[in-house]
Amino acid sequence: MRRALELAREARMICPPNPAVGCVIVKDRRVIGEGHTQRTGEAHAEVMALRDAERRGESVEGATVYVTLEPCSHYGRTPPCALALKNAKVARVVAALKDPNPLVSGRGLKMLEEAGIEVECGVGAREAEDINKGFLKRQRTGMPWVRSKFAMSLDGNTALSNGVSKWITGEDARRDGHFWRAISGAVLTGSGTVEADDPLMNARIEGAERQPLKVVVDSQLRLSPDLKIFKEGKVLLVCAFYDIVRAQMFEAQGVEVIELRGADGKVDLKALCAELGRREINEVHVEAGARLNGALAMQGLIDEYLIYAAPLLLGQGRKLLDLPMLQNLSEGIALEFIDVEKVGPDLRLLLRPAG
Amino acid sequence: MRRALELAREARMICPPNPAVGCVIVKDRRVIGEGHTQRTGEAHAEVMALRDAERRGESVEGATVYVTLEPCSHYGRTPPCALALKNAKVARVVAALKDPNPLVSGRGLKMLEEAGIEVECGVGAREAEDINKGFLKRQRTGMPWVRSKFAMSLDGNTALSNGVSKWITGEDARRDGHFWRAISGAVLTGSGTVEADDPLMNARIEGAERQPLKVVVDSQLRLSPDLKIFKEGKVLLVCAFYDIVRAQMFEAQGVEVIELRGADGKVDLKALCAELGRREINEVHVEAGARLNGALAMQGLIDEYLIYAAPLLLGQGRKLLDLPMLQNLSEGIALEFIDVEKVGPDLRLLLRPAG
Repeated sequence: MRRALELAREARMICPPNPAVGCVIVKDRRVIGEGHTQRTGEAHAEVMALRDAERRGESVEGATVYVTLEPCSHYGRTPPCALALKNAKVARVVAALKDPNPLVSGRGLKMLEEAGIEVECGVGAREAEDINKGFLKRQRTGMPWVRSKFAMSLDGNTALSNGVSKWITGEDARRDGHFWRAISGAVLTGSGTVEADDPLMNARIEGAERQPLKVVVDSQLRLSPDLKIFKEGKVLLVCAFYDIVRAQMFEAQGVEVIELRGADGKVDLKALCAELGRREINEVHVEAGARLNGALAMQGLIDEYLIYAAPLLLGQGRKLLDLPMLQNLSEGIALEFIDVEKVGPDLRLLLRPAG
Repeated sequence: MRRALELAREARMICPPNPAVGCVIVKDRRVIGEGHTQRTGEAHAEVMALRDAERRGESVEGATVYVTLEPCSHYGRTPPCALALKNAKVARVVAALKDPNPLVSGRGLKMLEEAGIEVECGVGAREAEDINKGFLKRQRTGMPWVRSKFAMSLDGNTALSNGVSKWITGEDARRDGHFWRAISGAVLTGSGTVEADDPLMNARIEGAERQPLKVVVDSQLRLSPDLKIFKEGKVLLVCAFYDIVRAQMFEAQGVEVIELRGADGKVDLKALCAELGRREINEVHVEAGARLNGALAMQGLIDEYLIYAAPLLLGQGRKLLDLPMLQNLSEGIALEFIDVEKVGPDLRLLLRPAG
């Protein structure tokens, strides 16, 4: 199962919106086939592993199959994997997790059991859950997993007061950041960041064949359509007031413009997340300023904070989050550290809301 | 030597202003004696180890002595340890470091060599250096090692804007903080912190028999003598304008008041550090607000930053350092991470100026 989880992790950049699944087929204590999810519409992990075994000239009859997610039981973009395993006459299937997809959810395992295949579920569940937290959250709630990324000085400044922020963190941290973009279904940013930095917001990393959808929040549609972010890839521009003249300037160059107005006259961020969920976005990677991040955090929409902290003190500057003035510490955003790692000279901190 | 370094570490709370030294005596591959520095004026590590061997009924003749600092060669508060080792007829002495004290510096090792004892130096030097960085810096430069401690939210706030800071970090981090106070020769704080929190600033931890000198910077002598910090232990109150009436209120209750005025009319912090060095303070532990810390940092007086970061986001509040508005990132205080550790739910970060 450890190897299967490894394979699943390797699939993360290519597979969205499919879950990243790894599969290993073992017979007589030897690995005779392995594989992971391919691009959408292409083969799932189980089929890849079966094909691998075939290519190696191995018979999978009577073999044990380790797979990080329950084999699917329905005809979706591909035929059901449970059927492929049944036809291959494997003896035993060990799955890490049940698939929460209501079209599968236990049916895959049941189909196997009914075919006389021994079935086990739960081995390596925690890690498997972590690898596909976006997919699983979306299946369970309809909402994507939202991760907000920051690069800051150790004293919590993301830029100097004059806006200078290039580069607070080192090259290694910046390269690492592209990996997280690459595994995401969408990158979400705000008009302030786009205007200030004119970023591309794409994933510039080896292996990123697929690019995340770029989502730009611009309540008033005040950004210039000439900015780089609008020139390449799929872009969704989200406003609170759809101005047909402004919108057409964007639409003319292939940018989709939608209006999602909240009660406060700003973009309804919760509705935006739900919309991204509907579009099969599992993970949303936020790279934005203090205002958008503050609003997301205040609405409890951030599932994970990815913070690169440089060993640097700047005294004052731009903050991570715009929050209202607090009176008590208990009003702050309480998190817990999930992972702490040195990345070059910087620290990479992963936090999630305190359970 | 590893065990000797361990012993040295154990001595850190009791030995200042002496260096923390550990000593292990080995004969026939067996440890026959060990010890570490005791309180000032009491026995050094070597003598403790010799006594330990004697108590165990072991003869040290022909033994090897591992010691984390060169044995002293002069009559100070105690007789020279090199002489004690010579008289004990040990065969070999392995020291981690030469003693930079000009009264010793190589003479201890030389005295041993002249007595026909085999001498080696440098084993475990880096760790030995780290354990006594304060003592060594003071011997070499006359200045103490200055460590500044902070407790902050992950977004760099040491308190809310209304001053509330109790408690940003957890109990474990606060307990850990007392250890660092306890190994220090002095705790340095400013009038703002004393006024706001009315702290005791003593080391409340098991094993802290000795209390650090409390040093309070109060340029205008505007603090009330009734504050807790002035009620207990040795206190040095440092001002820029010695007002005899105000000063006598403090002096009447045993607080020493000195004037150290800099060119800018504020307390001359460099002169203060030098003064603490003259008073045999090896390590100064700073617990102060953004103003005093900013001034220390700007003058390059902070050797080490000890930062407890809580998994909490507060948005805005009090900063770590008051620095002038920067125009470029290169004007920031560039550090490097020395150590990162989880302490309860918080992170403890140790940083030093980038070499």
